[in-house]
Amino acid sequence: MDAKTRILKAGARIVLEKGFCDTGLAEVLEAAQVPKGSFYFHFKNKEDFGLQLVDTYAETLKAGWKKMYGDENLPHLERIRGLFRWQTELFRKNDFKGGCPIGNLSLEMGDRSPSFRKKLDRVFSELKKELAFQLDQARQGGELPDSIDPEETAGFIITSWQGALVQMKVSKTTTPHEVFDRMIFERLLKTTTAKNK
Amino acid sequence: MDAKTRILKAGARIVLEKGFCDTGLAEVLEAAQVPKGSFYFHFKNKEDFGLQLVDTYAETLKAGWKKMYGDENLPHLERIRGLFRWQTELFRKNDFKGGCPIGNLSLEMGDRSPSFRKKLDRVFSELKKELAFQLDQARQGGELPDSIDPEETAGFIITSWQGALVQMKVSKTTTPHEVFDRMIFERLLKTTTAKNK
Repeated sequence: MDAKTRILKAGARIVLEKGFCDTGLAEVLEAAQVPKGSFYFHFKNKEDFGLQLVDTYAETLKAGWKKMYGDENLPHLERIRGLFRWQTELFRKNDFKGGCPIGNLSLEMGDRSPSFRKKLDRVFSELKKELAFQLDQARQGGELPDSIDPEETAGFIITSWQGALVQMKVSKTTTPHEVFDRMIFERLLKTTTAKNK
Repeated sequence: MDAKTRILKAGARIVLEKGFCDTGLAEVLEAAQVPKGSFYFHFKNKEDFGLQLVDTYAETLKAGWKKMYGDENLPHLERIRGLFRWQTELFRKNDFKGGCPIGNLSLEMGDRSPSFRKKLDRVFSELKKELAFQLDQARQGGELPDSIDPEETAGFIITSWQGALVQMKVSKTTTPHEVFDRMIFERLLKTTTAKNK
């Protein structure tokens, strides 16, 4: 692994744990086992490092979601549902520490840096777009009625999921996910079906 | 206004803007026009100050919500719906800076301090309990079907609302609230009615 990748990998772990502002570059370089002087060879400044970290997080997240979306043994809706169950399980195993770096950085950096804010907004848009595509596939396969708007529904699911992560962190229980799961998959998407019959 | 109230009031404004960790006590005391030495007369330490700040935020929030809930000119559901519209309008007017101090502190302090985490969790529980009571009133008044579970629904509404705040901060648009509003009040609560007919 090259030095830059090592820095981003160590940074991703530390920033998820401590937040961006509280993360010291020296600590990241030490964890990455990269000489202190080489940081500015790879990054313009701390903000540039942070923005590239967002790309790193987004790639990891999108790769994980893509894998879940691609499970052809399951109906589309079950793949989507399973994705949030899987993310919740990872979060629970980590005692609800950390969570979603994109959501965390949105609240931490949204007011501080327009570059961060715009990049984080773009990541959310990409996640929503992919989820909308999956919902549309479910609709085309007859798992959802034609009346459903995949884009709006995808936006709402990602929004509610971000809220569930906030609530899981403070309650240290999976209840917010369970309620999210029931409300979205048993009620919102099902009653739409019922309505359409 | 006594010195302690002035400190908490100035602190509430600064912490909402900068986060808790980045807020310096000297800055709070200067804004409150209280002599530097008197902080430790009123608070045990910075964490004690932060915990009392959470109480201050919770009281302000609950008083605002109570006022909206008490508007007897409107049906119960419209009061609830109006509450989130009003909060969104305040957020928009502030260019989506700040937001909900309880949600922000949950992500900032949830992993750092068990005392913060527990107190924030309690505030969410109180907000949910009051919202569940209002939903139950709506149900008793025939605005919602008997099949609805006020507690679970209240939990989901608060959860989705927290997510909408995250999304509004990064998108700097009210779209996440509009989607939240439609999905909850036009779809989730309405289709439940349809299902029950």
